[in-house]
Amino acid sequence: GQEKGRNRWRMLSGLLAINILLIGSALISGGAFNEVAISENDGHLCLTVLLILTIAWMLFYVCYTAKRRNAVWYKDSHAGPIWLRGGLVLFGLCSFIMDIFKIGYYSGVVPCESPVKLIFPVIQSIFLLVQTYFLWVHAKDCVQIHRGLTRLGLMLTLATNLILWMAAVTDESLHQTVAQKHLNPYLTLNVTQHRSASFASRAGSKASQCECKIKNCEVFKNGYYYLYPFNIEYSLFASAMTYVMWKNVGRQIDDNEHHGKVSCRLHGVLLGPILGILVSVSGLVIFIFYDIDIIIEHKKSEALVMFYTFSTVGLGLMSAASLAGSIIYRFDKRSHASHKNPTRSLDITLLIGSALGQFVLAYYSVVAIVGSRATDRVNALNLTTSLMTILQLCLQNLYIIEGLHREPFKHEAEHLDLVCVNPYVREDSSTDQQNTENTSQNPPTQTQNPETTPSRQTYWNRRAVKEISTFLLLCNIIFWVIPAFGARPQLENDLEMNFYKAQMWVPIVNIGLPFGIFYRMHSVSSLFEVYLSS
Amino acid sequence: GQEKGRNRWRMLSGLLAINILLIGSALISGGAFNEVAISENDGHLCLTVLLILTIAWMLFYVCYTAKRRNAVWYKDSHAGPIWLRGGLVLFGLCSFIMDIFKIGYYSGVVPCESPVKLIFPVIQSIFLLVQTYFLWVHAKDCVQIHRGLTRLGLMLTLATNLILWMAAVTDESLHQTVAQKHLNPYLTLNVTQHRSASFASRAGSKASQCECKIKNCEVFKNGYYYLYPFNIEYSLFASAMTYVMWKNVGRQIDDNEHHGKVSCRLHGVLLGPILGILVSVSGLVIFIFYDIDIIIEHKKSEALVMFYTFSTVGLGLMSAASLAGSIIYRFDKRSHASHKNPTRSLDITLLIGSALGQFVLAYYSVVAIVGSRATDRVNALNLTTSLMTILQLCLQNLYIIEGLHREPFKHEAEHLDLVCVNPYVREDSSTDQQNTENTSQNPPTQTQNPETTPSRQTYWNRRAVKEISTFLLLCNIIFWVIPAFGARPQLENDLEMNFYKAQMWVPIVNIGLPFGIFYRMHSVSSLFEVYLSS
Repeated sequence: GQEKGRNRWRMLSGLLAINILLIGSALISGGAFNEVAISENDGHLCLTVLLILTIAWMLFYVCYTAKRRNAVWYKDSHAGPIWLRGGLVLFGLCSFIMDIFKIGYYSGVVPCESPVKLIFPVIQSIFLLVQTYFLWVHAKDCVQIHRGLTRLGLMLTLATNLILWMAAVTDESLHQTVAQKHLNPYLTLNVTQHRSASFASRAGSKASQCECKIKNCEVFKNGYYYLYPFNIEYSLFASAMTYVMWKNVGRQIDDNEHHGKVSCRLHGVLLGPILGILVSVSGLVIFIFYDIDIIIEHKKSEALVMFYTFSTVGLGLMSAASLAGSIIYRFDKRSHASHKNPTRSLDITLLIGSALGQFVLAYYSVVAIVGSRATDRVNALNLTTSLMTILQLCLQNLYIIEGLHREPFKHEAEHLDLVCVNPYVREDSSTDQQNTENTSQNPPTQTQNPETTPSRQTYWNRRAVKEISTFLLLCNIIFWVIPAFGARPQLENDLEMNFYKAQMWVPIVNIGLPFGIFYRMHSVSSLFEVYLSS
Repeated sequence: GQEKGRNRWRMLSGLLAINILLIGSALISGGAFNEVAISENDGHLCLTVLLILTIAWMLFYVCYTAKRRNAVWYKDSHAGPIWLRGGLVLFGLCSFIMDIFKIGYYSGVVPCESPVKLIFPVIQSIFLLVQTYFLWVHAKDCVQIHRGLTRLGLMLTLATNLILWMAAVTDESLHQTVAQKHLNPYLTLNVTQHRSASFASRAGSKASQCECKIKNCEVFKNGYYYLYPFNIEYSLFASAMTYVMWKNVGRQIDDNEHHGKVSCRLHGVLLGPILGILVSVSGLVIFIFYDIDIIIEHKKSEALVMFYTFSTVGLGLMSAASLAGSIIYRFDKRSHASHKNPTRSLDITLLIGSALGQFVLAYYSVVAIVGSRATDRVNALNLTTSLMTILQLCLQNLYIIEGLHREPFKHEAEHLDLVCVNPYVREDSSTDQQNTENTSQNPPTQTQNPETTPSRQTYWNRRAVKEISTFLLLCNIIFWVIPAFGARPQLENDLEMNFYKAQMWVPIVNIGLPFGIFYRMHSVSSLFEVYLSS
């Protein structure tokens, strides 16, 4: 009966999400590609209704379901890690500001625009507040009561977030296609012109027909377009967390992997952090110079060359480090964590899934460069960077996944808590004594894996893995910061835009980049886990 | 070590497939949307290389790996069922004829076209022969040796098939967009004109520049465009089978569900088959009339009305039957098959995944009709049909999934084999005696589920499920035949085309319809399984 009910509700909630998603995507694509744009208001109206329903369910959950006895027996300690919740709050804040800008702008033009345009951001800002609170507090819940309703509600939330994501990507792409036209007038082929004109009429012309009644109208308008990327990222974060909650409904296995006290001390690890900080700082400097130079027309190609050179070198170093790590793992005799672990599988799926965004961008660039036989310096470097990105993603994913599949050095970790000094120094001087101590402390572990006795070999292996993980972690942070704070070389370099046309390339970038940002953040957290377990 | 190696190869082969797929999709979209079309030959060259690699691996597998001792211990009896293999051969044959037409056409224009255009169909026809043989013979294999290589090879095959699918969908869409322009000249807005012109120049103008040297050139050309849909379907079938083989690499669980002798006798089931045949025959008649009327301009709307009316009625009956079946299951006391069954999960995933195609078409139609406020008779019926499709898909999926999750009536099935007469007649007359017999034959089953004793209630439940399954099975066949043999009301009705523009709607139809056909065939086989197990 239990199993039967579970399957039925999983089915039903899945069907609900599919249905909502398809209506949403049809409305959005109908609105985007239709010259008459009858359905744009329909779309906003439909989204508003969805938002209200989702808010209602979340309030019901927070105020009623979660307050009941026996509602939540277990908390999944892996779900909703701090980087995800922190990111959610950060991006949620930016989205909230975006909504305030939108409200400001549309309250100025409301006499000639449909009132739906004003109501939508109001409801969306309420939604942001409720959802951020809901996910911050309840992301780890394994719900045990009202399971059917909770599954439906979570799928409703997931679908709403994904539709908001699609709507934001479409809006952003329409806006950038118009901007692109103004920047590169030689791009205006017949087709671009026609379509851009229709986009422009949707994006702004109506507003220009009727006068904006308030001050700072332009500021509001430019402001909310600037904040769109954060909103896209917010929807992705919320979707990931909601999906994990949905997977956890009715889960009854207690987590046996308690992390204990997380110790962030570096334990003699030195080379990795130093190199990582070096790469990060130079990345930051180059990012600032790039941002200054890219808007000056005659310095543009210089800025791109600088950017691509840095990326190639940085990604090359990261690939080498990942490769070295994978080789070390091949000689590592630690036992392989072979038991099924749903959280780990989910983590790995999210990692690979979000990597697809960068894969797509890199491969599309490669094909565009090779296909248009471009041989100038900028594009040769662009090609190298793209190939390096592909290589780096493959090697880093392999390294992280190998690392997550290892059993942690448990007896060592416990030991660290006891002695509170750098144990390697003592190990070096008195390896034999240490061994005896360890054996007496944890006889079962020792008998299971006799190879894990901390020998000199193991010590160097572990230290190497720690060095590599810290280095990769710091590098991933800088490769997260650069796109997250606005570097879009994919749109600045005209080659791909000419090859695929703005109508195709701008959406690809707008979908691919946020996934790339998500991937880098996820990598950072996974590498941190690898560091802790080695 | 086993587990470790398995995960590494799964990872590596997955990465290989992702990389090949992304290169392929970049090449195809670069070729399709680029006016200069530099990369079209690059794309064909790349595909040819992929095909040769795949052929080489399949020959290696057939001639070397499969011939080794211990290569295949178990055969997965659920993998590669007869409908899938039969469909593969049927669609493979049509694709083969398509390739011969292509070779015929391009051998006529080879002096002025690139020779790659001629080599590609030659290699593809060899690929079709090798792959159809490979999948026909080896689809059920659970490979035990050369696991890493086999995983890589299977992922290569999967990626190749998916790229062929994408290429066929793109070619077909380009061709239909041009055809659409010729048929509906009022559609030629600025944008359509420009793009269509560029498509037309790619699709045919080069050929018209240089004279075709052989007779029947036009026949060849029209012939291969007519056969494209079968090639699209072939790629989908091959992809599904390859994926199942990949899942089965290294699987060591022997199938404990032996079907025994399949008994197709109807056992007094009458109403379902009669109603089903009625719907099928009327569907066939309407399909023929539709095909005749749709090409005559003034009878077009009449044909569409007829078609939509039939679809609405048919889908309505199917929805009612599925709903009734689901209600019967609620009162069914049979034990629920709760053990994990990877083949069943895969089956259900494929069922829901392929249903997405029809969902997308239906929802996009609904949004287009509602969005353009169309109130004429044709579109009112179109709306009803779309809504009915959505309802029917939801209800039928729920019914099939509930049915697949039931334990079969094992003691009854065994009993049937023994007595070889319609047992229900005897049951009716001597239920008590029957019960005693059953109990003595299968005591364990009886003690587990005391409710399954064949009472009058159970008898009627089972009979109803059988009636419903046969009815749905026959209806699904006719709803498979109609789109498979060329009815495309989605393209004939201009409303969606005007709403989404041909550039968007034609690809949606070309992607959605083949999945819909796949879904209907899959449903037929699943319903047959439900029939057998009830």
